[in-house]
Amino acid sequence: MFLEKIDDTNDLKKLNRKELKELANEVRAALINKISKAGGHSGPNLGMVEMTVALHYVFDSPNDKFVFDVSHQSYPHKILTGRKEAFLDEEHFHDVTGYTNPLESEHDMFTIGHTSTSVSLALGLAIGRDLNKKAENIIAIIGDGSLSGGEALEAIDYAGEYNKNLIIIVNDNDQSIAENHGGIYQTLKELRDTNGTSNNNIFTSFGLDYKYLDDGHDIEKLIELFESVKNIDHPIVLHIHTIKGKGLPYAEVNKEAWHAGGPFNVADGTYKFVDEDDQTLFDSLTNLLNANKKAIVVNAGTPMGLGFIEPVRKEYVERGQFIDVGIAEENAMAMISGIAKNGGIPVFGTFAPFLQRTYDQLSHDLCLNNNPATILVLSAGVYGMNSNTHIALCDIAMFAHIPNLIYLAPTTKEEYLQMFKYATTQKDHPIAIRVPVQMIESGQEDTTDYSIHNKSQIVQQGNDIAIIGVSNLLPLALKTAQKYKEDTGKNITVINPKFLTGLDEELLNDLTNNHRLIITLEDGELEGGYGHRISSFYGMTEMKVKNYGISKAFHTDFNADELLAQHGISVDQLVTYMKNS
Amino acid sequence: MFLEKIDDTNDLKKLNRKELKELANEVRAALINKISKAGGHSGPNLGMVEMTVALHYVFDSPNDKFVFDVSHQSYPHKILTGRKEAFLDEEHFHDVTGYTNPLESEHDMFTIGHTSTSVSLALGLAIGRDLNKKAENIIAIIGDGSLSGGEALEAIDYAGEYNKNLIIIVNDNDQSIAENHGGIYQTLKELRDTNGTSNNNIFTSFGLDYKYLDDGHDIEKLIELFESVKNIDHPIVLHIHTIKGKGLPYAEVNKEAWHAGGPFNVADGTYKFVDEDDQTLFDSLTNLLNANKKAIVVNAGTPMGLGFIEPVRKEYVERGQFIDVGIAEENAMAMISGIAKNGGIPVFGTFAPFLQRTYDQLSHDLCLNNNPATILVLSAGVYGMNSNTHIALCDIAMFAHIPNLIYLAPTTKEEYLQMFKYATTQKDHPIAIRVPVQMIESGQEDTTDYSIHNKSQIVQQGNDIAIIGVSNLLPLALKTAQKYKEDTGKNITVINPKFLTGLDEELLNDLTNNHRLIITLEDGELEGGYGHRISSFYGMTEMKVKNYGISKAFHTDFNADELLAQHGISVDQLVTYMKNS
Repeated sequence: MFLEKIDDTNDLKKLNRKELKELANEVRAALINKISKAGGHSGPNLGMVEMTVALHYVFDSPNDKFVFDVSHQSYPHKILTGRKEAFLDEEHFHDVTGYTNPLESEHDMFTIGHTSTSVSLALGLAIGRDLNKKAENIIAIIGDGSLSGGEALEAIDYAGEYNKNLIIIVNDNDQSIAENHGGIYQTLKELRDTNGTSNNNIFTSFGLDYKYLDDGHDIEKLIELFESVKNIDHPIVLHIHTIKGKGLPYAEVNKEAWHAGGPFNVADGTYKFVDEDDQTLFDSLTNLLNANKKAIVVNAGTPMGLGFIEPVRKEYVERGQFIDVGIAEENAMAMISGIAKNGGIPVFGTFAPFLQRTYDQLSHDLCLNNNPATILVLSAGVYGMNSNTHIALCDIAMFAHIPNLIYLAPTTKEEYLQMFKYATTQKDHPIAIRVPVQMIESGQEDTTDYSIHNKSQIVQQGNDIAIIGVSNLLPLALKTAQKYKEDTGKNITVINPKFLTGLDEELLNDLTNNHRLIITLEDGELEGGYGHRISSFYGMTEMKVKNYGISKAFHTDFNADELLAQHGISVDQLVTYMKNS
Repeated sequence: MFLEKIDDTNDLKKLNRKELKELANEVRAALINKISKAGGHSGPNLGMVEMTVALHYVFDSPNDKFVFDVSHQSYPHKILTGRKEAFLDEEHFHDVTGYTNPLESEHDMFTIGHTSTSVSLALGLAIGRDLNKKAENIIAIIGDGSLSGGEALEAIDYAGEYNKNLIIIVNDNDQSIAENHGGIYQTLKELRDTNGTSNNNIFTSFGLDYKYLDDGHDIEKLIELFESVKNIDHPIVLHIHTIKGKGLPYAEVNKEAWHAGGPFNVADGTYKFVDEDDQTLFDSLTNLLNANKKAIVVNAGTPMGLGFIEPVRKEYVERGQFIDVGIAEENAMAMISGIAKNGGIPVFGTFAPFLQRTYDQLSHDLCLNNNPATILVLSAGVYGMNSNTHIALCDIAMFAHIPNLIYLAPTTKEEYLQMFKYATTQKDHPIAIRVPVQMIESGQEDTTDYSIHNKSQIVQQGNDIAIIGVSNLLPLALKTAQKYKEDTGKNITVINPKFLTGLDEELLNDLTNNHRLIITLEDGELEGGYGHRISSFYGMTEMKVKNYGISKAFHTDFNADELLAQHGISVDQLVTYMKNS
């Protein structure tokens, strides 16, 4: 066992080639140990084992600096930089995050979870090095799937002009989360097929030097390659072919399913827990596509988020009604503006944190032109993602001030379906829908006419106090009202705002007749959120307004209900506040 | 005179080659007529004259659809599509905007002012066409300077996979606003130098078909080229070499100065009005660079916005202390995070609307990692830009909710200098500075310690009413207080908030002792802005709060003071409100 002796990267440098190979096997076993028990990104990390061993053998981290794109492939790096217990010992599994993290180790440069950032960040490290006149190798490790992102392409273009040390490793496993998209992947394939000799070379055409290695799991060749570029005086791309999921036969075959997941049985590759995913979202999309041949679903590298797993999406791709642009959210957002302009009915859905990449396209390309496209915002709010790398607490603050946009917040399955129907049949506005994290069935069909904008719904009429429960927090608002009734005998009002981009001024004015306190609850950041709009509305009246929401911070690894409770958002705390107000 | 007979594009199709050439000369004369009298984008439009004539001769707009990137080169298109009077007749100069505009003409597909959007938008039109099973040529016209933007590169990549009609014209005049940057431009040069035959072809390496034309001002060759690709069944890039400023000798030579500008004397190319630009911003940057060799100014295609005109920036580029990444704001924002992480002192400055492109990089790459970089936000608010294509009213709504960011709002030259000094010497946070549109000298050095966050300044102590004058509106707040004093004899309080990302809770609490009304004034959008934060703070108190700001809309072509007055923001209206409150 070599791994137990590796406490820092100097230990690894003492091993000979054979021992390094053995070490790699042990790293792979440690990976499988943890991922099979606790879940995680299996495919990307299994493909990086040998490369990471060779990188740490040749380069001198942290003086030499690695930037892992997305950083969900940095587990082997963590194992080799003093954090192996987090992979070997179940009690320490949670000592490390799933992404690089400077708080964990000086070998980690950045907290990263979004794709396509590594080359820019590495360029920054390189320029910082130059300003300080230091000698360091700066190495970006980017997967082929991340190459299609605009930030990565901008950086690769600028790297073509930069003229000092920078090593860009393209870890080419021929797979994003789903299959890759875009012309660049045809070129990568040509390069693989010609052992890197094809004239049609995307990297040299950006002005970069280039080397190819076909077997990215051969430690000796990897070491030779890295030694050949150590201390190089200009940028170079090392295009290295690896196998996603290397070492787990089922993962090597079914790469999409094995990109990431929960605990699994190592012997046969069956997942230990299988979620029964709610099909509402998927059904709404396929029903639209089947009913209207001018409708199209657009996606940016996360088709499974919409339920379009491989066999299903194939059919719609062939019909011209499903497009995955790859990791390229900017292009997706601008495209739906064009599709809507020219008579198509586009629906673009992806996860809330990735929509951050399209603020400008949403505002300038789509909303300024007021084209009727639909955007499905997945996993927004505290019940969505819970890592600071994928924080999704600012969707309201980010979207709600953009002119022409209608942002809808369904709280039940039925509301979602009616809002989706409205969004995809109207011709007046871009409409975003904050898809509920849980599709709660109310059992009652929603027949609301959503073309009448900004109408909120009084879910329960009372007096004295009204709670506005935004989106996923409407159920909590109702529970709070019920408990308050039990405790005090008093009925309060509960409101479902439904529209996040405008206020129901008539309803809010009516409330002043027999209410003295409005409480707003939102499952995202307070600053710039929905509640602030209510406070401003009532600013010159006698109405008291209390805004509840999450504080401005990169909260991470939280339990949603606990995070809410830390911000006073729980039935008991709210009831106590109301009693004392 | 042929131009007078051209009322729509069918008229143009009746002309023979010789007449078309004459028409082109008349179009150029019309352009020069307007731009020399009213200002505008001279260089880009002069280079597009012959190409636009040929495009409208060969294709059938609006069935065939043109998307002009940035669209500041669409003047010839406007002249040929029923809007010539706006270039020939001074009384009609303001009938058209400087960008494509669907409200003006069915020949304009989108309102566009940001770069790098055309290929995505054209792809969208193409897909909309496919869904409707129509026959249309879709043509994107993108300048070489726009190619470096992530959105453009994402779209070009996706175009490499798309398999139906799409024509991408790369109008290569070897110049962005300033010189181009990035490796891609070396490749473009190689292609120009080899008449399009170089193997190192960025477009084919994205999987695209390709044709080159060296003389982009030869109407016959342009027509031949366009006819060869009309109704093509797959995407193709037409790389066409043109001369920016063609037809004005001084503009052809000094391309940067003649990208755009005010009225000029045609005979000698001297500008009629020369602004004496305030040098505060430029001096603050050069002083920093001269005093600290680890400091660096980063820019994204708009160096003149920081005062770094050609001869000046050359020196700092050579010293490694000035980088223009080209139009690639995402890369710039991520890079400054890396520079700061590795011991450099980066300052990234650009115009507020272009910072929209970097929301994700600001949040995820920079603020999540809390690296101490400085961002200069230029032209924010109503006194900045005034076109809906370049709207800059949402900077507070977009920035202020991002964790870890400190957003400072200096109101005088002295405050700016002190804040800049603080930002570039501290190591704790990313700091953005909302650079005042006018650098008002107070005459008093600012010695505030800005490391104590969120401290607002009481500029004038009074009672009963307090006005919080955000950023560029502090002078108006002071004038309002003065007029109120004159009218009523009462002193009110005026506050300069200084920090836009946090409240001075102590000060706000103190105000409750002897104030009953807070008025907030901001020169940007009300929703999600600064005032809302104040309203929320006082929500449970007796304090009345009135937020003033701009309504949520894509306001355009406005006079700043008039727009403010339309929203109740003028001394007289405010004084009246205060008297009645």
